[in-house]
Amino acid sequence: MNQPQFFKPASKLTLSEVAALTGAQLADPAHGSQIISGIASLDLAGPMHLSFFDKRKYSDELHESHAGACLVGAGLQVDVPARIAVLRVANPYAAFVEVGRVLYADTLRPASAFGTEGIAGSAVVHADAYLEDNVVVDPLAVIGPDVEIGSGTVIGAGAVIGAGVKIGRDCSIGPGCSVLHTFIGNDVIIHPGCRIGQDGYGFVSGPAGHRKVPQMGRVLIQNDVEIGAGCTIDRGALRDTVIGEGTKIDNLVQIGHNVTIGRRCIIVSQSGVAGSSVLGDGAVLGARVGVSDHATIGAGAMLAARSSVVGEVPPNVKWGGSPAKPIKQFFREVFEVERLGREGGAKKSKPPGAGKEEQA
Amino acid sequence: MNQPQFFKPASKLTLSEVAALTGAQLADPAHGSQIISGIASLDLAGPMHLSFFDKRKYSDELHESHAGACLVGAGLQVDVPARIAVLRVANPYAAFVEVGRVLYADTLRPASAFGTEGIAGSAVVHADAYLEDNVVVDPLAVIGPDVEIGSGTVIGAGAVIGAGVKIGRDCSIGPGCSVLHTFIGNDVIIHPGCRIGQDGYGFVSGPAGHRKVPQMGRVLIQNDVEIGAGCTIDRGALRDTVIGEGTKIDNLVQIGHNVTIGRRCIIVSQSGVAGSSVLGDGAVLGARVGVSDHATIGAGAMLAARSSVVGEVPPNVKWGGSPAKPIKQFFREVFEVERLGREGGAKKSKPPGAGKEEQA
Amino acid sequence: MNQPQFFKPASKLTLSEVAALTGAQLADPAHGSQIISGIASLDLAGPMHLSFFDKRKYSDELHESHAGACLVGAGLQVDVPARIAVLRVANPYAAFVEVGRVLYADTLRPASAFGTEGIAGSAVVHADAYLEDNVVVDPLAVIGPDVEIGSGTVIGAGAVIGAGVKIGRDCSIGPGCSVLHTFIGNDVIIHPGCRIGQDGYGFVSGPAGHRKVPQMGRVLIQNDVEIGAGCTIDRGALRDTVIGEGTKIDNLVQIGHNVTIGRRCIIVSQSGVAGSSVLGDGAVLGARVGVSDHATIGAGAMLAARSSVVGEVPPNVKWGGSPAKPIKQFFREVFEVERLGREGGAKKSKPPGAGKEEQA
Repeated sequence: MNQPQFFKPASKLTLSEVAALTGAQLADPAHGSQIISGIASLDLAGPMHLSFFDKRKYSDELHESHAGACLVGAGLQVDVPARIAVLRVANPYAAFVEVGRVLYADTLRPASAFGTEGIAGSAVVHADAYLEDNVVVDPLAVIGPDVEIGSGTVIGAGAVIGAGVKIGRDCSIGPGCSVLHTFIGNDVIIHPGCRIGQDGYGFVSGPAGHRKVPQMGRVLIQNDVEIGAGCTIDRGALRDTVIGEGTKIDNLVQIGHNVTIGRRCIIVSQSGVAGSSVLGDGAVLGARVGVSDHATIGAGAMLAARSSVVGEVPPNVKWGGSPAKPIKQFFREVFEVERLGREGGAKKSKPPGAGKEEQA
Repeated sequence: MNQPQFFKPASKLTLSEVAALTGAQLADPAHGSQIISGIASLDLAGPMHLSFFDKRKYSDELHESHAGACLVGAGLQVDVPARIAVLRVANPYAAFVEVGRVLYADTLRPASAFGTEGIAGSAVVHADAYLEDNVVVDPLAVIGPDVEIGSGTVIGAGAVIGAGVKIGRDCSIGPGCSVLHTFIGNDVIIHPGCRIGQDGYGFVSGPAGHRKVPQMGRVLIQNDVEIGAGCTIDRGALRDTVIGEGTKIDNLVQIGHNVTIGRRCIIVSQSGVAGSSVLGDGAVLGARVGVSDHATIGAGAMLAARSSVVGEVPPNVKWGGSPAKPIKQFFREVFEVERLGREGGAKKSKPPGAGKEEQA
Repeated sequence: MNQPQFFKPASKLTLSEVAALTGAQLADPAHGSQIISGIASLDLAGPMHLSFFDKRKYSDELHESHAGACLVGAGLQVDVPARIAVLRVANPYAAFVEVGRVLYADTLRPASAFGTEGIAGSAVVHADAYLEDNVVVDPLAVIGPDVEIGSGTVIGAGAVIGAGVKIGRDCSIGPGCSVLHTFIGNDVIIHPGCRIGQDGYGFVSGPAGHRKVPQMGRVLIQNDVEIGAGCTIDRGALRDTVIGEGTKIDNLVQIGHNVTIGRRCIIVSQSGVAGSSVLGDGAVLGARVGVSDHATIGAGAMLAARSSVVGEVPPNVKWGGSPAKPIKQFFREVFEVERLGREGGAKKSKPPGAGKEEQA
């Protein structure tokens, strides 16, 4: 990272201030006035950086680190070289992030890619749109009739906000997004290239082909949601598609029509949730999870990466596999199939009287 | 749905008109002049709504429904509360959809997101493009040289139509799409953010790296095709990529170069079809199906969600799994692996003389 | 392909020139002055086309071909009809591609979709951007402050290049892309709709919800990289996301924050690489491969389509399955599970004293 950086710390902190911010305890109070001006991992940190050390397996990085100060977990302090100021804290990574959030506050919500203030002259804003004060509209965005946008919100370059869409305050809509037939709350981040509110996929099939089913619903995105780049979220058919408060969605996720996603869910990249399914509050989908239509995932349930769900998953379980089942059961299946493959292979390749193993 | 709606019914219908439209039989002819002004599911319907009841498992919703009228399947009429007017019909959902298509005709093809009539002043249309009358071009769309667009077609905001592309009549190209090296028929819907006609993925690899193979073909999209948001369809290398008439593709689907998709196929979201593969007419790919290159899927074949195809699938079969095989065989494999996992787990966890099952 | 073509050969070649270009040997030197004006597969070729024949299974196409000349592999010459001029060469397809690269040189890098020369008047270029001579900027592209773009590069219509981004020479950035917080080398092709440089997916979760982790890194894309349509590449959190020289990425691929992709890797469509993972030089991911976070894939390792990687894959191996393992071991597992399904099914369906097989 010796090339120019896009983000610079907005301020500096003394280690006393770091301790106050994070609840950490400074091992040697004499370091209280030492200053840090950034955060960095152990291998990249310099004397002005705060780092963190929470697992003994990173001891090599710690011993070679040029960090000025380090947040250190319970029982790990003895490992730290004397040149590095130590701050003891229960969860070093969480504390490290809190400091980062203060120093790099401008990373917490995507800003204008053009440095725009107000509404760019090249943006096309319909006369019947209503924008509160302090909305930023980047060049060549399109804002349709009857749109309402709250103050502090940034509309990215080339984004398209369709007729009647409402967007709350302090949101960020990324470059190149399209948002149609949607109501969005406050503090929502939608990353570039998302497709939100287009028709769901519904047809009545017969000998004459597939007849399109009207999709009359909307998309409702509650406060504090974050949606990754390139996601597709269809509007509902007879009801709405809902993304609950505080839910965080990674890139390239597909959400079908009429889906209800609860609050504070985690949906990792390339997952898909088919029509009319319901995720309870706090449900977690690992990467590439597929949820079939009309499925129900209980609150707090966790689905391992690549699993696929049909029907119902109880609350607060860890499931995996396809079809998804309790994770231990899934692991046993994987184990037994691997054993079977080894034994079958050994049998097949063993000529009479010989003991050679087939080489993989 | 007590917030504002994006789609309102364009008209009202008497139940006699509903009966005539759908072939349904009004149980009590005295209700012939009763008026409905919308369609809704049983739980959301009010007295002005038509609903449908086709499965006894929705009896609770039926009994609590405020619907004014209901399309009801064979043998289900006795279940309907007296306050709800009954229309008997063989396929209640299909009839319900037909009524929806009349009342919400403006949902059947995506319209301008800006309320544009004609060509928006901010669109950039090349002097050598030819647009028939009654084409709508939304703000900030880009239309290249030698493009031809038929009447009734809507080009979405920010869409890019590359040099020489031809688009038929009554099509809808969504906001933010790019369409290059492509010919499109009539009545085609392409949802937002699709990427159509860019280079296929072809390289000749050697010690010096990967040399790009020229991609000289086109994409041909026949009449009445619908393509979901965020799909990618590459143009052919030495031949064309073809999407057959009446085929419906869901969101985030990838179609490689030289692929031929037959007529009236169904391809559910996040599926992918690799280069030079062929789908016969009416083939169905469930969600997340992967078809490898140079594969052939017979007409009418159905692939279960998440299956993956190598080689050839016969016509009119139901296959699943990876590699795909007859669905019963696949289900037996899943069953046997689950049994193996249970038995293996039981064996491992069984202490001598005890019968306790390991808890998942 | 009897409709208009988008790409026409820029020149003609004699068969002597073809031989010189490819190292092929003209079977009958009398054909040295014969002219070809294009390349085509055997079934589509006419008398002015050069084709290739490298596998006996295409003998039918060869015998019915109207090609004027054909590149033919070792031992296959005797099969060629007398009307087709023969050029013998070790690798007919590679030679065919070389000729195509000369005749259709304009396919090797995507050009302006609008026929633009220089900077389109409708593009929005910040006063503090620096573009070398001979940059092409298509209509309605947005180029932010402190951007630098090298000569010969084409910025597609509607693309958004965010503040501070650097792009080298002779690159092509497709229509509708967004590129933020990124440095790009020379000769890079980014196909339409890519999302590059947005925030990675990082949260610290607690009872109060998911707190966003600052993402301060960049994306570094080295020379000669090609990235397919609709890909998403997040910028790093504490370090950079790096795509190595000569790597080729297919459509709809997701690359998480802090990932390092080596040089000359191949990543086929719909694959995903989660945060902080590392691919060695020349690694190959088949279609739909999932690499979990903090995984390491050795140089030259090949992962079969649909496999998923956790942990470490050694260099120069062929692995497959989920979790990925040596490909022979994976094939044995597939074989054993298929056997188990057949035997289990046979057992279940066999009534006492009967020998009928259950029909799939």
